[in-house]
Amino acid sequence: MSLIRLYDTTLRDGTQAEDVSFLVADKIRIAQKLDELGIHYIEGGWPGSNPKDIAFFKDVKKVSLKQTKIAAFGSTRRAKTTPDKDANIRTLVQAEPDVVTIFGKTWDFHVHEALRISLEENLELIYDSLAYLKQHVAEVIYDAEHFFDGYKANPEYALKTLKAAQDAGADCIVLCDTNGGTLPYELPAILAEVKKAVSTDLGIHTHNDSECAVANSLVAVEHGIVHVQGTMNGFGERCGNANLCSIIPALRLKMGRECVNDAQLKALRSTSRYIYELANLVPNKHQAYVGNSAFAHKGGVHVSAIQRHPETYEHIRPEQVGNVTRVLVSDLSGRSNILAKAEQFSINLDSKDPITQEILENLKEMENKGFQFEGAEASFELLMRRALGTLRQFFSVIGFRVIDSRRHEDEMPLSEATIQVKVGGKIEHTAAEGSGPVNALDNALRKALEKFYPQIREMRLLDYKVRVLPAGKGTASITRVLIESGDKDGRWGTVGVSDNIIDASYQALVDALIYKLVKDLEEKKG
Amino acid sequence: MSLIRLYDTTLRDGTQAEDVSFLVADKIRIAQKLDELGIHYIEGGWPGSNPKDIAFFKDVKKVSLKQTKIAAFGSTRRAKTTPDKDANIRTLVQAEPDVVTIFGKTWDFHVHEALRISLEENLELIYDSLAYLKQHVAEVIYDAEHFFDGYKANPEYALKTLKAAQDAGADCIVLCDTNGGTLPYELPAILAEVKKAVSTDLGIHTHNDSECAVANSLVAVEHGIVHVQGTMNGFGERCGNANLCSIIPALRLKMGRECVNDAQLKALRSTSRYIYELANLVPNKHQAYVGNSAFAHKGGVHVSAIQRHPETYEHIRPEQVGNVTRVLVSDLSGRSNILAKAEQFSINLDSKDPITQEILENLKEMENKGFQFEGAEASFELLMRRALGTLRQFFSVIGFRVIDSRRHEDEMPLSEATIQVKVGGKIEHTAAEGSGPVNALDNALRKALEKFYPQIREMRLLDYKVRVLPAGKGTASITRVLIESGDKDGRWGTVGVSDNIIDASYQALVDALIYKLVKDLEEKKG
Repeated sequence: MSLIRLYDTTLRDGTQAEDVSFLVADKIRIAQKLDELGIHYIEGGWPGSNPKDIAFFKDVKKVSLKQTKIAAFGSTRRAKTTPDKDANIRTLVQAEPDVVTIFGKTWDFHVHEALRISLEENLELIYDSLAYLKQHVAEVIYDAEHFFDGYKANPEYALKTLKAAQDAGADCIVLCDTNGGTLPYELPAILAEVKKAVSTDLGIHTHNDSECAVANSLVAVEHGIVHVQGTMNGFGERCGNANLCSIIPALRLKMGRECVNDAQLKALRSTSRYIYELANLVPNKHQAYVGNSAFAHKGGVHVSAIQRHPETYEHIRPEQVGNVTRVLVSDLSGRSNILAKAEQFSINLDSKDPITQEILENLKEMENKGFQFEGAEASFELLMRRALGTLRQFFSVIGFRVIDSRRHEDEMPLSEATIQVKVGGKIEHTAAEGSGPVNALDNALRKALEKFYPQIREMRLLDYKVRVLPAGKGTASITRVLIESGDKDGRWGTVGVSDNIIDASYQALVDALIYKLVKDLEEKKG
Repeated sequence: MSLIRLYDTTLRDGTQAEDVSFLVADKIRIAQKLDELGIHYIEGGWPGSNPKDIAFFKDVKKVSLKQTKIAAFGSTRRAKTTPDKDANIRTLVQAEPDVVTIFGKTWDFHVHEALRISLEENLELIYDSLAYLKQHVAEVIYDAEHFFDGYKANPEYALKTLKAAQDAGADCIVLCDTNGGTLPYELPAILAEVKKAVSTDLGIHTHNDSECAVANSLVAVEHGIVHVQGTMNGFGERCGNANLCSIIPALRLKMGRECVNDAQLKALRSTSRYIYELANLVPNKHQAYVGNSAFAHKGGVHVSAIQRHPETYEHIRPEQVGNVTRVLVSDLSGRSNILAKAEQFSINLDSKDPITQEILENLKEMENKGFQFEGAEASFELLMRRALGTLRQFFSVIGFRVIDSRRHEDEMPLSEATIQVKVGGKIEHTAAEGSGPVNALDNALRKALEKFYPQIREMRLLDYKVRVLPAGKGTASITRVLIESGDKDGRWGTVGVSDNIIDASYQALVDALIYKLVKDLEEKKG
């Protein structure tokens, strides 16, 4: 297998994303994770552009990395100076990285419009900068900015810039699709011409503006490129950079290229998550290979097949990238989903048991009413247990009242709830305030029940979503409430549907409490 | 330019996504939007699989569509029966769609393992089903499930299944990458072989499990495919289907193919948003072409260049798809946004007027508090008018009280609101019931105001959304309420933010009412 060198720029190009920024400490932790993952190069930042990046290159020397080389990013020297006098180039050398990567202009239009110098002078910029850096740094990589746009505009000149980089001794020349506008079928012909013009190792750097960044990178590899630049989770400016989380498994599992080993590949999902965490972003559940939904099956047809032969609807084994197969319930699902769920909930359910059909009917009927169990698996588990008659009556709510009032224009509304519950014959009548009627009701419910079930104190309401479902003419609109709750051991979702938002919220709240009690009881049983 | 036929399956394959589920009413609204966008085929559902989909085909006949053909989806007949006796095929015909699309097995492994019949018998299933449907439906499309996996496993048999479909008279044969495992460089050779074997029009249906769905679709078009299936925003099972929001602009702007016209292309972003809204999903800001960040520039180098020559860092002009360039770092961009909005609201605002800066500050401050005006432009317009002092005091709410109560276990909660408003010196004190506190408050407000402003009767609350925003450590979580209202002339969105959901809802309700009064006043002025 031929080796493909992976070059990660999450810490540099990735932080150009609208919502991504890392502390120096985060960048160091990410560098260590990427080293464990088996990434060959980590672009740590642009020391010339900000102090944070300078600090990174100082601090990263204090941690031990197994194999990764740390690269510093910058640009070719400015016009009318020499590399040794160019501030940006000097900071690159002072950062003492293993590798320096500099970008230069390939597109004649940019040379005129952005640099405002002659085409000839730009070739000198590229040559001088690389030749100087080669004397001071072990390895030097050249990023040909806007290569593909430049080549389309003026192929001859674009290739001249690459030759200048080769003559100056660049160890690798990286073809950049800076604007992300290139389509995959355009690459083979262009790459063939490039290989005729230069013999230096070639790399690829793509952006996702056409949703083709991963595809373009893989096509490039298929046509002889040996160095691939990208970011974890595709972080990057505008639509992001090529997503290494999708490129790595394709190279390893589909294209038979050497890059990371099997054990490292198994860490792909956890590494992806780790970086979302440090960036404080919600992971994209539909992300290829590593997303929560990447191997989640909803269609009944699929599910029954999956159980016999995963390869029927899975392009790889999820375990290879540290992910798992999941089965979802919905009105599209069949008996097989129900049985799979029962197994997941460790509920004994025989496929021949007519109750299975019964549950499926309930499910379809409820989904038609507006219920949705995909975010509310706890409610679905309770639905099954009710059907099976294995759910004990922990408590019953006799009645409640919630009052929200604002007496003066400049006053904040106050919400107060009173509630009456019955637990094992005893009636508890109490009241509580809250920020809004649902919160007040939640507080009152807990207050009434904690005395009988103290474990309820461990439980917290984590998220509350309300959706008003468009209703048919004349009829009142339906409200769906999704609640996510959690305790020290986990999180669970419950759902309620009603034409009254308080009733819907009440249903979801009660399910959440009952689920907590069921869960703890099951755990006691072991 | 050669025409590419766009086939949207958001309403069928799209609803296989873990978090996507539409009511019949939503599906009809989406079908109308897609028709306006210029989509040629809309796959409305699988009538054989659930009642919701049967209802869609009944209801969609009641709305008038400009050009779109409605397709019903299903499978080939079961073994050991005839098409006219096959329940699934009969429901397809009974649904009376313009087009029927059925899928059949291509992969020998599936024929043995899933259908458990002989390879020969599977060819009969395909032939019989299509031949029968051709007699009862105007147009019949054949989806060759798992075509690419099937072809790799047994090319000869895979092509035989296509020939069976052609012999039965299929109007189009669609090659499906059902598992999404195919990589773009594999397509050209396979498509060449297919074209040797069959002469029927070919289509492509890809999934995004390798993050190559869009790329594979475009490569297929480049190699002679004339029918492209996908979903809006790439909704779909696991990692989603090919994203039409990325395919359409590439076909139109980069590949010179005819599909939608320029005016329709400009509606791409708003259509994408509309569908996210009905699915109650947060739009992906980094989405190619239509995302908020798709043309957002952060890097200082880029920004200065962009302002002189957009093409330096933008692969297309954002306006072509109804998007805009955003410059993230400079206040300048903020100012120009404000001015652009003012123009949109036909509010006279001078760029030199210091109030512009004032409005920008307010805006930033409110966004920090959790306000978001994306879906609430009416609230933003009122914010501008308040700053400019051009908003008259139509009414003021002195106070209100809402009571939700349920006195017995089997009773539905009842919501009742009392309210005190002041209009032109007069105080109105009244009460109303409602399905939930917000609805009761809404009813009471209208009842109190209708007497003074009868036009309020024309106005309806169309949608109500609640999001709980993640709270900082220790602080109470914040609730954002988005309300969409409408009358005979249009729809408008308003927003409220508070740690009390009733307060947030109250803010959005009041804004909605004020906006209605402003709107009518402006129209009177002409």
